[in-house]
Amino acid sequence: MKKNKSEKTAYLITIGDELLIGQVIDSNSAWIAKKLTGLGIKVIKILSVQDEENEIINALNEGLEKADLIITTGGLGPTVDDITKKTFAKFLGVHMEYNKEFFEKVKEYVAKRGHILNDMLFNYSHFPKGTIFLKNRVGSAPGMLFNKKGKKIFALPGVPPEMKSIFSKEIIPILKKESIGYYILKKTILTSGEIEAALAEKLKDIVLSFPKNISIAYLPNLGRVRLRITVKGNNKNKLQEQLNEYVAKIEERVGDYIFGYDDETLEEVLGKMIKDRNLHLATAESCTGGMIAHKITSVPGSSDYYKGSVVAYSNEIKEKILSVKHETLEKYGAVSEQTVLEMVSGVLKTMNCDVAIATSGIAGPTGGTPDKPVGTIWLAAGSKEKIITKKLQLGDNRTKNIETSTFFALDLMRRFLQ
Amino acid sequence: MKKNKSEKTAYLITIGDELLIGQVIDSNSAWIAKKLTGLGIKVIKILSVQDEENEIINALNEGLEKADLIITTGGLGPTVDDITKKTFAKFLGVHMEYNKEFFEKVKEYVAKRGHILNDMLFNYSHFPKGTIFLKNRVGSAPGMLFNKKGKKIFALPGVPPEMKSIFSKEIIPILKKESIGYYILKKTILTSGEIEAALAEKLKDIVLSFPKNISIAYLPNLGRVRLRITVKGNNKNKLQEQLNEYVAKIEERVGDYIFGYDDETLEEVLGKMIKDRNLHLATAESCTGGMIAHKITSVPGSSDYYKGSVVAYSNEIKEKILSVKHETLEKYGAVSEQTVLEMVSGVLKTMNCDVAIATSGIAGPTGGTPDKPVGTIWLAAGSKEKIITKKLQLGDNRTKNIETSTFFALDLMRRFLQ
Repeated sequence: MKKNKSEKTAYLITIGDELLIGQVIDSNSAWIAKKLTGLGIKVIKILSVQDEENEIINALNEGLEKADLIITTGGLGPTVDDITKKTFAKFLGVHMEYNKEFFEKVKEYVAKRGHILNDMLFNYSHFPKGTIFLKNRVGSAPGMLFNKKGKKIFALPGVPPEMKSIFSKEIIPILKKESIGYYILKKTILTSGEIEAALAEKLKDIVLSFPKNISIAYLPNLGRVRLRITVKGNNKNKLQEQLNEYVAKIEERVGDYIFGYDDETLEEVLGKMIKDRNLHLATAESCTGGMIAHKITSVPGSSDYYKGSVVAYSNEIKEKILSVKHETLEKYGAVSEQTVLEMVSGVLKTMNCDVAIATSGIAGPTGGTPDKPVGTIWLAAGSKEKIITKKLQLGDNRTKNIETSTFFALDLMRRFLQ
Repeated sequence: MKKNKSEKTAYLITIGDELLIGQVIDSNSAWIAKKLTGLGIKVIKILSVQDEENEIINALNEGLEKADLIITTGGLGPTVDDITKKTFAKFLGVHMEYNKEFFEKVKEYVAKRGHILNDMLFNYSHFPKGTIFLKNRVGSAPGMLFNKKGKKIFALPGVPPEMKSIFSKEIIPILKKESIGYYILKKTILTSGEIEAALAEKLKDIVLSFPKNISIAYLPNLGRVRLRITVKGNNKNKLQEQLNEYVAKIEERVGDYIFGYDDETLEEVLGKMIKDRNLHLATAESCTGGMIAHKITSVPGSSDYYKGSVVAYSNEIKEKILSVKHETLEKYGAVSEQTVLEMVSGVLKTMNCDVAIATSGIAGPTGGTPDKPVGTIWLAAGSKEKIITKKLQLGDNRTKNIETSTFFALDLMRRFLQ
């Protein structure tokens, strides 16, 4: 994927020692990259550098040479380890300037939160001369815009909600004004139930028939594989048609595995299905420990169709609230098909719902037995009329087991409704 | 933080278009960086580059020049967009070689999972001549080790569990053998209840008294601030003493705000407190929708002290399972101090527990009223004898509201137990 001549490019630079010692995962870059891609701007490199003057300046110089646009995040706070502003002054060859208006605002902001102003906030109120300020509606550190060699450099705070707010409300309008009529359109097809290599084999001849401006990528992750189709060019309408045409071909070939598109999550897709059918959902979770409920309720408006969950982490609760029979637990154990079947029936009744999901398993890392090793998980999904079940045999990683079971439990309900 | 002469350095290079369009967050780099830091190796740069030959080769050359060690992740899969292996061959000036043994193993691996072998897997079985293989116990793509100019370059698959397994089991032993007697020790102090600037002001004189080889960083995030103290040098025992001394000074000054250390999570700290007191915990969640249960059950062994949760997303469930009085909901509403108090009492009884947490609020983005705007959250934590409550007034970001409420609800229980 060479840089196209009419394609605008960007460098992202994230600044902070915490990134280089691995204390913080850089989630900002992915967020910004997605927004820029949507604007037709191609991110060609993401760099994470230390809070160290030379490293920051080198990264800025490289970006200035290679890209049309630079965005930095991090190092704008009030403490001594935050050196981004001073470094920008040096990079631009300007002095730091005291900003009285900013100082007064920060004073007020801090006072409101019941804290006392200190010296540090005086230093905090200095900015490189000529800074164009970008309003921060969420925190105190403003975004900054600088110009050098005819290129724009944006500096944003590293705290994600602040970065996002400034980017969305201040930077996007600026970039949109400069848009240049080159387009990158993408469609991501979300699949579950088949591995990467097998999907690739099924799609081989379609992919071989792709024109030069279209490409596909396979992105596997915990039970699902995303297929990302990209088209590039100058005529937006034609590109959209082309994209639709190839997506349709792919859908025809592997439609059975598709559960959604683009940024949709399985919980959103499922939520929509349940709402469209005017149903009410409940969940009864053992090994997933509330993660299914959390996923479902992360969707705005889920209270319309979701009544709630019983997280039954002990057998006592399974019996008492979910009416799982004592004999069932004795005879088959908590991790069994019989138990999840009764959990579905029980929670349907307790929560007075139409459909329900249940899970019971050994998330690990301990608690396994010879015939039920760690990673043995039973899932059930259904209604009063019919319940379907699925058994998973996963590994010994607790986090991964909880996540994978949650995904397959939601997917089981999706398949049940289909 | 200049590079110390006796400090070994590393470059991390993550490869994949999915990173540069923001579809995937690069969590691998942080994980590797943390491991390397623990081994006394300083990561000086993290780079994310496209699946593009020149970009990968440029990054490798830069790393070879600037660092002692390079680790790459990504681009080792079987599909056409995975070009890392071919690019390494070019970078090293060697040919690609067919590996029959690998081909047979992959054939078997794929067959076991019920899939059919295809052409792609033949190409997949080619590696740069001279590759030293690093065993992948989790997936099919092996890690690879190359040597150039007396420096080691490791190439790992991008799928996190595979990368982690190869790194832990194959790379760490190699790096440990080469360890050079230079140490970086770190201690991170976790605080809640005070903002970054105010903590910095309280600690000002202590920080000013730091010897040159010790430094502090402030890392704020959703209600908590982490203070990271770093010491560097050659004498490990002396460094440990020095670190302990300054950590003790900081603890004395801001101890009231400290809830934990290093990678501890609040849910782990709380779990330990509850277990040590021989108590049993239950939760009753409305607006947090199961996330508190999820956090608590993410801790291995939590089934010893956690009985479960009632996620009561509808008023009906609050009344029916949690025995919240109909009049309370009528008079004060679901989002009220009275409701969360009754939720605690109700779930203590239903789940037959000693202590319980409850939440009720408007997570947003819609559902607010003039006197109860979006972001109004009530929390309660307590026992049969005593319940404490806290009201939060947050913003309109659903995800952030759920996360912040979860943190403060767990913190409220921690404070209750103290």
